[in-house]
Parts: sequence; C-alpha cells; structure tokens
Amino acid sequence: MSTVKRISLVGATGSIGQNTLDVIQRNPNDFSVVALASRSDYEQIVAQAEKFLPKLVVLFDESAAERAREMLIGSGIEVLSGIEGILEAATIKEADIVVSSVVGAAGILPTFAAVEAGKVVALANKEALVAAGAVISNEAQRTGATIIPVDSEHSAVFQALLGQDLNGLRKLILTASGGPFFGKGSRIPDVVTPEMALNHPRWKMGPKVTVDSATMMNKGLEVIEAHWLFGLDHGSIEVLIHPQSIVHSMVEFVDGSILAQMGITDMRLPISFALGYPERMKLALDPLDLAAEGKLEFFNPDEGFFPCLGLAYDALRRGAGVPAAMNAANEAAVEAFLDGELPYKRIPSVIKSVMEQTPEIEETNLTQVLKCDQWARETAGQVMSAMKEEK
Amino acid sequence: MSTVKRISLVGATGSIGQNTLDVIQRNPNDFSVVALASRSDYEQIVAQAEKFLPKLVVLFDESAAERAREMLIGSGIEVLSGIEGILEAATIKEADIVVSSVVGAAGILPTFAAVEAGKVVALANKEALVAAGAVISNEAQRTGATIIPVDSEHSAVFQALLGQDLNGLRKLILTASGGPFFGKGSRIPDVVTPEMALNHPRWKMGPKVTVDSATMMNKGLEVIEAHWLFGLDHGSIEVLIHPQSIVHSMVEFVDGSILAQMGITDMRLPISFALGYPERMKLALDPLDLAAEGKLEFFNPDEGFFPCLGLAYDALRRGAGVPAAMNAANEAAVEAFLDGELPYKRIPSVIKSVMEQTPEIEETNLTQVLKCDQWARETAGQVMSAMKEEK
Repeated sequence: MSTVKRISLVGATGSIGQNTLDVIQRNPNDFSVVALASRSDYEQIVAQAEKFLPKLVVLFDESAAERAREMLIGSGIEVLSGIEGILEAATIKEADIVVSSVVGAAGILPTFAAVEAGKVVALANKEALVAAGAVISNEAQRTGATIIPVDSEHSAVFQALLGQDLNGLRKLILTASGGPFFGKGSRIPDVVTPEMALNHPRWKMGPKVTVDSATMMNKGLEVIEAHWLFGLDHGSIEVLIHPQSIVHSMVEFVDGSILAQMGITDMRLPISFALGYPERMKLALDPLDLAAEGKLEFFNPDEGFFPCLGLAYDALRRGAGVPAAMNAANEAAVEAFLDGELPYKRIPSVIKSVMEQTPEIEETNLTQVLKCDQWARETAGQVMSAMKEEK
Repeated sequence: MSTVKRISLVGATGSIGQNTLDVIQRNPNDFSVVALASRSDYEQIVAQAEKFLPKLVVLFDESAAERAREMLIGSGIEVLSGIEGILEAATIKEADIVVSSVVGAAGILPTFAAVEAGKVVALANKEALVAAGAVISNEAQRTGATIIPVDSEHSAVFQALLGQDLNGLRKLILTASGGPFFGKGSRIPDVVTPEMALNHPRWKMGPKVTVDSATMMNKGLEVIEAHWLFGLDHGSIEVLIHPQSIVHSMVEFVDGSILAQMGITDMRLPISFALGYPERMKLALDPLDLAAEGKLEFFNPDEGFFPCLGLAYDALRRGAGVPAAMNAANEAAVEAFLDGELPYKRIPSVIKSVMEQTPEIEETNLTQVLKCDQWARETAGQVMSAMKEEK
C-alpha cells in the first residue's frame, strides 16, 4: 500500500486482538499501531507495547494500569485507565482505523465513540450493533464513519457485495458451523459442562463466543448485526448450517445467482481484509484446498434444536430495546453457565423470560440502550435466582 | 431497466439462442430483438421471427434463406443469407448487444465483426477467443467493445471479480462436472458410443459441447478463453472437478479468500446476467436450495483420465497458432466421432498429432487464424485417414 495505516486496537489481548497484531506483524510496511487497549491483562499488553511501540496503552482496570505504567516507565508510552482511557483509544486522532474487538456489551461505548469520531471502524464486537444498531447507524451516517465488519460471516457478505447491483439483492445467507452438538439425528446432551460447550469443532475463539456458537445465539446476534450492516430485514436474512465452515457466508440475487466467500477458518483473513480494504493483503497462510476438504454440506437449522436462533429473530422483528435486552440477558446467562451457576439448557429460558418482560420503547440514544442493557442484566439475575429456588 | 436494450442474436436456433429468447420473453419491457441469425434452421427462426419481430433474419444457407423469405413475405422482415448476412447481423447498427452463440470456429468471424463494430458482445462462443484471442482482444481495446462472457464458468468469474481488488487476484479456479465418465476409481469405457458421451449428468447442451465436456476439452477451451478474458497466465488458471455443477467457478485472492458464484444449472442465469449487466434481472426460476442439494464435492482432475485438458494447457503455453490448430483438430475429431468414424479414445491422439505438426508462428490478423484453422482441419483429416488404414 502507498501509505502506512495507523491502527488503534481496542480489545488488544483477546483472540481478535492477538490475530490483528499478527496480521500487522506480517505487513510491517503497511501498518503501525498507535494505541492498544484491554480490560486488565497488563502483562500481555505491556509485551505487545514493547513490540509494536504505540503512543498509548489503556487498561480499563485502574490497578492493572498502574502495573503497566510501572513496567513501561521510560518507554515514552502513555498509559491511561478507566472508561475515559478506553474512549481516548477509540477516538485517538492519530488512528486511521479503530479495531473494535472488546467482547460483549462493554464494546458498545468504544464502538459508538469511534463512529462518533468519524473513524474507519473494523468491527469485531457484535453486541454494539445488536444492542445499539439504530443509534450507531444514525451516527455513522452523520459523521461519515465507515464500518467494515471483521466477523467472518459479515466480512464474507461485505466482500461478496462489492461492486454488485444492490437493487438486485434478494437475501443474505449466513452460515453456521452448528457448534459441538450438531449432527444428523443428534440431540443436546442432558448435562452440558462448560468444557463440552467450549469444544468448538472449527473455530478457535474466546469462551463467550464459543458458548454462543453452541447455542447458536452467536448466529442470532449475527442476523441482527447483518440487518444493521446491510439494511435487509429479518425475512431476507437466512441461516444455513455448514459444518465444514469453509463457506463463510453468501448473498443471493434476484436472478438466483449466489456469491459465496470461502476460506480457511482463520480470523486473520477477515481481519486483514478489514485493515487492508480496499486492497487485499498478502498473508502467506495455507491456502484453502477444496479437493482435500472433500465435501461441503448444508443443512437447514432446526429451531427446536437451536431455540436461541428463534429468539434472536423475534428480537429483530420486535425491535426497539428488545435486541439489547436479549443480548444482555444472554451475556448474563452465559456467564452464569460458565461459572457453573446455570444449566446449559436453561440459557434460552432465561433470555426468553427477560425478553417477555421487555417493553417495546424505541431507543433513540445511547443512554437508553445502556439503561436497557443494565435492566436486562438485573432481570436475568432475578430470573436465574428464581430458577434456583424452584429446584 | 430505464431503456430497452436491443439484441442481435447470432446463433438463434441452438441451445443458447433459445435460452436467450426465453430470457428476453421473461423481461419484455427490458429487451427487444433486432436481428436473428442461424445456419440453416429456417423453420425455427421463422417461428422466432414471428414472435419477436426483428428487423432482420439471416440464414447462412442460401436455400434455407430462400424458404424463410417466402414464409416471411409481407412481414416487413428483411431476410439475408451467406457470410455477408451473418456479418450484417453481427454489426447491425440498431443492436446494443450482440449475442454471439454460433457453435465452433464458425463463430470466429461474427464475433470479430461485432467487436470491430464496438458492440457489447455477450459471448457464448468459446472458439473465437481460443483461436483468435490475441486478435480479438487487440481489436476490443481499439474499438472499446465490451465482452461479457455467457459461459457459466466465465460468467461466474466475471461476477466474482466485480468491484474486487484485481491487483490482489491470485488465481481463477474453473469448475468442471467431470462429464458422464467421471467417478471415483472409474475409467473410460473401452467402447464409447456417441449416445454415451452425450449423456451429460448436469447440463443440457448441444452435441459438440457435450462431447467436449466428456473429454474435458471443453474445460481446456475455457482455460484458454479465461486467459484472454481475464488476463491471467496458464499457471494461474486451475481446474477443479465438481460433479454437482453448483459452484460455477471461483476466484482466489492473495489473502487466501475465495469468491465463488453458485446457481442452478440453467444457462438462463449467465445469459440474463450478460444481457442485464450491470443490473440483475428477475428470472423467476427455481432458487438454488443448498440444503436439499446436500453436499458439494471437489476433486483434482487426473490428466491421465482427461488428456485433452493437458493438451489445452500445452496449447496455451505454446501460444501463437497452436490453440487455433488444437481447436480445429478437436472440432474435426468430435465431428468424426459423432459420425461414427473415430473411436472416442482416439480424439486426443488426433488433436495431439495435429498440435505436434503446428508451427509456432505468431498470428497477427484474422486471416492467419482462419488459415491455421483450415490447415489444422485438413491435417486432422489426414491423421484420421492414416489411423483408419492402420487398423
């Protein structure tokens, strides 16, 4: 590329953050790092900072920031903390691209801030658009911010739609691996341990996303996200189970033609696409060998098997604060499951119960979204307490 | 679409011609027919003319033209004959798009003429670019003619490359059904009748193309055509056997990302794409149902099983008149096979023998190409006579 793109990485120490730095390292003449932010993993972020020499390091956690500050003394790297620090990283004026890769609803604020600042936002966080899609889309329109998706499914759709006649677009087909429990004639085991749910057949991801992938709430979140990214309604976004995870997603046109994006299951592909866009970066990863892969299979999802997918479509249909509440309830339920506090099969019940209690009031600003998120978390807690007492 | 596109259909009565008229009939507000041309099928072309009311009807065969002229008396439709008539249809000033769908080397002259006239050419004829790729490409550059491929494979590549970073293109992957004789562990039967070779598992096509598909010379011709359409060399154009014929072809970028175009096996898809481009036309055909399809498989082609594919790569590597000679020898051999004059397994031997005798002299104009074509046909005839005497 002709000029060096400067990257701020908000969510540097998770799976997406690490892969992003790997892509940058493979293309040192094309990218530099201006900021790194994380919740509390000061040891990792200090090591990253020593390698990539950003201007700014942020740790949300104050004591972690203190430790990083000590370790980086004399480096000339500024260390900030708290939400102010995170927002500084998300809007830092030197950044050409802000990678938003914080997991969960914690990513809503920095994503909004980057959009408000008119940045190119490489968006790996799903929850920002799920919970605050209307608010963020309006803001992007106002500021001219560009959102380039990093999720492999949305990156696939984004790639497939480039240069196409969008008036002739009929639908999006998001592919789903089906997670660890999908198989012909199979059923969810009666007892699912976190270890079982975390055993994803294809993708290496963080624990929250991996559990979401097993319940297929992950795909539900992606359906809602796709609505906001590409402007199609719930009836024009389909999900197809594709256990090989080679086809990352597809778009179908009114003439019946389908364009599919394929690749190995490696997040460095969509990350490098988002960072390099509109140019393609050389990655030197193993190419996809379709002949070695043998076969690609596709199945319609059974909503009885994956109730969370149906809940997400409901949330998208109902709109207003329902997707934000659904997302918060899901986060609370998954956290409880990972902590051994909630049986796996109860995750959808918790979400459903919270959604049933959610009023359908249009949310026109971020404060309302965050309040709804908070309300849903508390309500999910009450639902789970009540469930425990039932036993 | 805002304006009606006027179509001249050179090769109206074959499979592509009929499908083109079906597409036009489904979109009567978008297209009109200004000319129809065929070799000799006057009954069909008269019926077409009575329905689509072109300005001009052409039959290459003089006596067929005479019959058509009688049948169309009083219609106000002009009827021409001979190569002059064909060339008039290919260059008629009222046409916005010339569909070039004559089968075989007979399509070279009208395709060149349409390109020379600066038309938008919807190209279904493979042999024009195979035999005269350099001459036609140069002419298109000079006149500003646009060539939009109609072959499903090249249409797939064309669709997949729209809006993409072409500097980041690594290779094209053309898919092949494998034809009627492909299967795991299978071999070509010792005796192949025309009936057996014409039993294509997926596509309904004319006899020449169907036999080419069985020998995989069809794919070889497409590799050469792809070279001229998309500017990649022989090392960057691969062939993958895909028995389901759902993925029509793919493009791979330097980041390892692959874009694939898929659809049902119906030529009306790529035809409507070429006619409607840059807009997508509604077709109301059955959509592709990937879940019902079950699985997509991919195999590397075995050049021992498909020697014609290797011959085509050789021809592309050698360049000059070799592809034209290869194509003519193939046409002669396939014709002899369909006439019961040449055993199926001897088709590659005839082509190979002609190619070995072809001098590598650069062809800079159409006359040289046509002379080479003629020489190769005669030489193929001599080779086949010698083979018969051997027996």
